[in-house]
Amino acid sequence: MSVTAAQGFTAAGIAAGIKANGNPDLALVVNHGPRLAAAGVFTSNRVKAAPVHWSEQVLRGGTVGAVVLNSGGANACTGPKGFQDTHATAEKVAEVLGAHVPGGEFNAGEIAVASTGLIGVLLPMDKLLPGIETAAAALSADGGEAAAVAIKTTDTVHKTATASGDGWTVGGMAKGAGMLAPGLATMLVVLTTDADLDSGTLDKALRDATRTTFDRVDSDGCMSTNDTVLLLASGASGRVPGHEEFAEAVRSVCDDLARQLIGDAEGASKDIRIEVVGAASEDDAVEVGRSIARNNLLKCAIHGEDPNWGRVLSAIGTTRAAFDPDRLNVAINGVWVCRNGSVGEDRDLVSMKDREVRITADLSAGTESAVIWANDLTAEYVHENSAYSS
Amino acid sequence: MSVTAAQGFTAAGIAAGIKANGNPDLALVVNHGPRLAAAGVFTSNRVKAAPVHWSEQVLRGGTVGAVVLNSGGANACTGPKGFQDTHATAEKVAEVLGAHVPGGEFNAGEIAVASTGLIGVLLPMDKLLPGIETAAAALSADGGEAAAVAIKTTDTVHKTATASGDGWTVGGMAKGAGMLAPGLATMLVVLTTDADLDSGTLDKALRDATRTTFDRVDSDGCMSTNDTVLLLASGASGRVPGHEEFAEAVRSVCDDLARQLIGDAEGASKDIRIEVVGAASEDDAVEVGRSIARNNLLKCAIHGEDPNWGRVLSAIGTTRAAFDPDRLNVAINGVWVCRNGSVGEDRDLVSMKDREVRITADLSAGTESAVIWANDLTAEYVHENSAYSS
Repeated sequence: MSVTAAQGFTAAGIAAGIKANGNPDLALVVNHGPRLAAAGVFTSNRVKAAPVHWSEQVLRGGTVGAVVLNSGGANACTGPKGFQDTHATAEKVAEVLGAHVPGGEFNAGEIAVASTGLIGVLLPMDKLLPGIETAAAALSADGGEAAAVAIKTTDTVHKTATASGDGWTVGGMAKGAGMLAPGLATMLVVLTTDADLDSGTLDKALRDATRTTFDRVDSDGCMSTNDTVLLLASGASGRVPGHEEFAEAVRSVCDDLARQLIGDAEGASKDIRIEVVGAASEDDAVEVGRSIARNNLLKCAIHGEDPNWGRVLSAIGTTRAAFDPDRLNVAINGVWVCRNGSVGEDRDLVSMKDREVRITADLSAGTESAVIWANDLTAEYVHENSAYSS
Repeated sequence: MSVTAAQGFTAAGIAAGIKANGNPDLALVVNHGPRLAAAGVFTSNRVKAAPVHWSEQVLRGGTVGAVVLNSGGANACTGPKGFQDTHATAEKVAEVLGAHVPGGEFNAGEIAVASTGLIGVLLPMDKLLPGIETAAAALSADGGEAAAVAIKTTDTVHKTATASGDGWTVGGMAKGAGMLAPGLATMLVVLTTDADLDSGTLDKALRDATRTTFDRVDSDGCMSTNDTVLLLASGASGRVPGHEEFAEAVRSVCDDLARQLIGDAEGASKDIRIEVVGAASEDDAVEVGRSIARNNLLKCAIHGEDPNWGRVLSAIGTTRAAFDPDRLNVAINGVWVCRNGSVGEDRDLVSMKDREVRITADLSAGTESAVIWANDLTAEYVHENSAYSS
């Protein structure tokens, strides 16, 4: 269902020839209204791709008529020419939609652009611009799946999710291989809804949702230059859901897509759910969770199905969170292998055969908690991320 | 040469049976004076091993008569019993030296203890305590090499270094496999000198030296629970070197040993020298250097001999350092592949065949700089660190 599950949207995904292998590489999502409300969140990396700079400006207006996304090139670290290319892409989309799509009269400042692929390489505009015409001609109310396929990079599957309320729907698509692919920039997400809401309401719901979903996926600690999450509302259902109800629907779609990203992580053999409990603050819980998620020795141990709780403690020890080392407890798949900072239950009781591994770290310092999702570190990850130049 | 290069010291390294494979696992270093001055720096991990807690107390007194070190067990996360074992070890050393070694009358509070090996496992005291008697009987003025061998864990070679001034010497030994071994705690270093200096002078020289040497080795971003660096002075040369001269000698020995740690890093195929220049402050340069050093995607790229400067920029972008993304320059092995945040010289000009790879990151924000040493990420690292439980 993807981005066309909600009324008022059409989408398309085509092969423009940006990817050398001829796979689909260009997606277009159009909002037919009556509303053109939108909100977006972007990478916090200070080195941002050209399309991120462009789309941040577009979203400030709170109005988005269409989103054009390409795989096969991130257009990051490409200088002034890269930004000119993004601008030209938006202008082309506005021109083509205005000429050929009923109700598609938008100005370039209402066209969001997202790119994913190699960093430091200019996009082949001679292929991308004609591709926009092909995509516009292919727009349809059931084009959501094709769009989701066209934004894949090293993803093995395309990723979509939906949630519905009373007469309204939230749908979305995402790309991202969890662990970053060689030289590629990572997560792109487009969410759509036919609920009749303004951009301020969308913004609050989207930020609340991403804070506890996409922001807590940490497959390899490497932050992209291109991360983009957009939420578009058409108002086509005529329904105005309550904020809590709508926020929960957006959160559930984001959570579903985030979990799919981890499940498709490059080279990974385990999905690691790290729950930090007993924290003095949510910030402490998140800091500790991230420190555990990013510990290479622990990630290797999980790959080896080794319940190595000592590596969990040494990771916790590098944080500024409030805790007493002699009161730390750690459970792996439900077995409390570490109690009071020392040896707990028999580690041989821990079974780690399943893909999902659950680590619970109890700081015994308060009542706050947080969950971070990560992956293990494997020889396949090293191979996929070192073989790029060959 | 090692720790017995300087006059006034004896050392020994023996097999006490702590390691199942029968390799040497217990080292003893004794200061015969006339001075017993000492200084030490320890891990900043908040989860500290029992011997670290003990030795921090010992060093507060500024007097160390002997150091006992064991491999085969870190005595970390071992609770009150672990600390009792460390205390008993120091008491045993004091007892044995007092009874059998002329001038070896020390109290337990003057005996530093260091351990390295598995975390979360108690030491086999029934083997360690008798081993201390064996080690004491083996003490000799040329026992430095044997001591350096006895503290190895997954190190492929033992590591020693010396520097000399006018009639005085600084010698040292180190263990550490750079990238941490499965469940092992890492770096142990003992430096000795026959210079006639007090503990305050030693402390300043040691902190100045470690700040720019051991503190800037970051092979896999994982901080140990056991890191210990000690400097002992016997005063046996009767010489009192100037502070600058002595500090430089200590720094050169630390630099030599730190470089040896990186060169022997587990599973590594590359030693990466990351120099950050043009920084607004030294702290900025170090923060940026560490962020680059810890980027798994870049570490994989270096392993693949791929001059992937985009991953350097995305790592810089995650820091709080002062810089303008459009003014960042990056050179790999002398080729400026990134200029002004965009494509620079042809990446094909970069040769990465040698083990040492030099990355220079110019922040164009000031005149400060720092060098961080790191290693690449390899399938061998993953294997060695995931095979522990098998």
